[in-house]
Amino acid sequence: MTTKHRCRKCGAPPVINMPQHRLALCAEHFPQWIVEQTERFIRKYHMFTHEDRLLAAVSGGKDSLSLWDILWQLGYTVDGLYISLGIDDGTGYSAESQAKADQFAAQRNLKLIVVDVPALYGESIPQMTQRSQRSKGKPCSVCGLVKRRIMDQIARDNGYDVLVTGHNLDDEAATLLANTLIWDADRILRQQPVLEAHHPALRRKAKPLFRFYEREMAAYALLRKIDYIYDECPYAEGTRSIFFKQLLNRLETVQPGAKLKFYLSFLQARESGLFNITAEGITDENMSIGAGGKPLYTCPSCGQPTIVPGLCAFCRLVG
Amino acid sequence: MTTKHRCRKCGAPPVINMPQHRLALCAEHFPQWIVEQTERFIRKYHMFTHEDRLLAAVSGGKDSLSLWDILWQLGYTVDGLYISLGIDDGTGYSAESQAKADQFAAQRNLKLIVVDVPALYGESIPQMTQRSQRSKGKPCSVCGLVKRRIMDQIARDNGYDVLVTGHNLDDEAATLLANTLIWDADRILRQQPVLEAHHPALRRKAKPLFRFYEREMAAYALLRKIDYIYDECPYAEGTRSIFFKQLLNRLETVQPGAKLKFYLSFLQARESGLFNITAEGITDENMSIGAGGKPLYTCPSCGQPTIVPGLCAFCRLVG
Repeated sequence: MTTKHRCRKCGAPPVINMPQHRLALCAEHFPQWIVEQTERFIRKYHMFTHEDRLLAAVSGGKDSLSLWDILWQLGYTVDGLYISLGIDDGTGYSAESQAKADQFAAQRNLKLIVVDVPALYGESIPQMTQRSQRSKGKPCSVCGLVKRRIMDQIARDNGYDVLVTGHNLDDEAATLLANTLIWDADRILRQQPVLEAHHPALRRKAKPLFRFYEREMAAYALLRKIDYIYDECPYAEGTRSIFFKQLLNRLETVQPGAKLKFYLSFLQARESGLFNITAEGITDENMSIGAGGKPLYTCPSCGQPTIVPGLCAFCRLVG
Repeated sequence: MTTKHRCRKCGAPPVINMPQHRLALCAEHFPQWIVEQTERFIRKYHMFTHEDRLLAAVSGGKDSLSLWDILWQLGYTVDGLYISLGIDDGTGYSAESQAKADQFAAQRNLKLIVVDVPALYGESIPQMTQRSQRSKGKPCSVCGLVKRRIMDQIARDNGYDVLVTGHNLDDEAATLLANTLIWDADRILRQQPVLEAHHPALRRKAKPLFRFYEREMAAYALLRKIDYIYDECPYAEGTRSIFFKQLLNRLETVQPGAKLKFYLSFLQARESGLFNITAEGITDENMSIGAGGKPLYTCPSCGQPTIVPGLCAFCRLVG
């Protein structure tokens, strides 16, 4: 940190400088600021209230454990959900990340629900991937499908009102960029900090950390002494998501704040009516309408929503 | 060129391989292909017909001279317009680029209209920039304003039907990316291969080369032995446009065809109704409606369109 920056709250030497906010903060005031800002975003984007029962999806990484920590400090009613994916090929990734989540919950006397994918479905994510047409060798698409399904199901079956995830700005901006570079209208329109439950089997989803940079969340976790898994998933290397994060980091270097501007101006453009959000094509009473205005059908096997009529992608994979 | 590629038309060793089209072509068939494709795009996007009188904006660079060459080969009625910007600080940029345009026209017995900015307005573009609030030191914004104005005026005053420019895919994709990264709705909606004349003082604008990569146009100019100015404008270095081209080139390296996909999927999304194109805010009979659905006013001094009521930006600059 250069000497020209001082903590705006107390004048002490700062631990972080955030050029996009023209704000530097010290080791004491930065974590406080993160918590206060999170509360502000929860209200501003109408994510949830203190009356809601929240379920936080925790991976054992810095973002999800920090989110749980922040919501706990803010006094929300929030349990954790850890999904064990069976990714253990030499790295012990799943076992180690579960240990971090377990330890975090135990230290704070919080409830952690654990779903073990191999025990439940007889196969780990890498094993399911080998059978699937979904991903060309990469388990990310199968993994996303299975995790989304389990999260939706646990939230619904256990009476939670809102599912919260630890996506940070780098995650959200990279996804938006990836979808925008191919102008995938459905995915672009579905991208929001709060996704309402568009189907009876779903619960509202919220991403309270979506305005924080990844490096801010890393600093938060460090300062709060949260013991998280440092390693990325062994399958993350070389993914599109990491490539788009790198592109945005290059942009951020020459235009500080560009990443935040990209995401917030998207939300603003959406709000100002840049996009045509219609609800065309509803022909069946079994349908709901998704976030992008497209119809959602109900899977005849599991009762969860699906974007095409018939068995949903999850039932086709696991069923 | 690796030995596995062969010209698709004749099997000869190729001069270029275009992975996005899975197409390699030889020195004879590649320029032919460029000309045929251009004709196809002119028809597909309803750019103009052989009845139209065209005015090609030529800078002396590879894209605009190649465009003029292609349209001439295709038998269109097309004159050239060279705008001398007075950029000569040590590099002789304007003088050299004009010499290239002059020579090209003379060799083919084509008509070139020359507009000399310093002679006409008493100031070069760099001099205007020093007085202007528009650009922070960079003349690009002033230059764009002045060139657009002169092109519109010459086209209208000399009875041309369509103004054509040599923008290639790299140009168009970089502009789209720059505007999308800040979700500038007006500029996003204005980006099209053909821009209809939305105001009586304007003429239709078309970009027949918008689907060709920059390297394809360089290869075309080389094979056609077009003598063009190799140097970039001395002010181009470090511009946003060049930065965004570099970002897209990185993307293209890992995903061949990504640049074309980005632009074409944008046009497709636009066509499929992703965007809300309205014509709100029309309250005055002096207004027309621009490409993005926003009103266009008429400048009381010069009669050209302007996006805010009162004197247009050009009249405020040149006065």
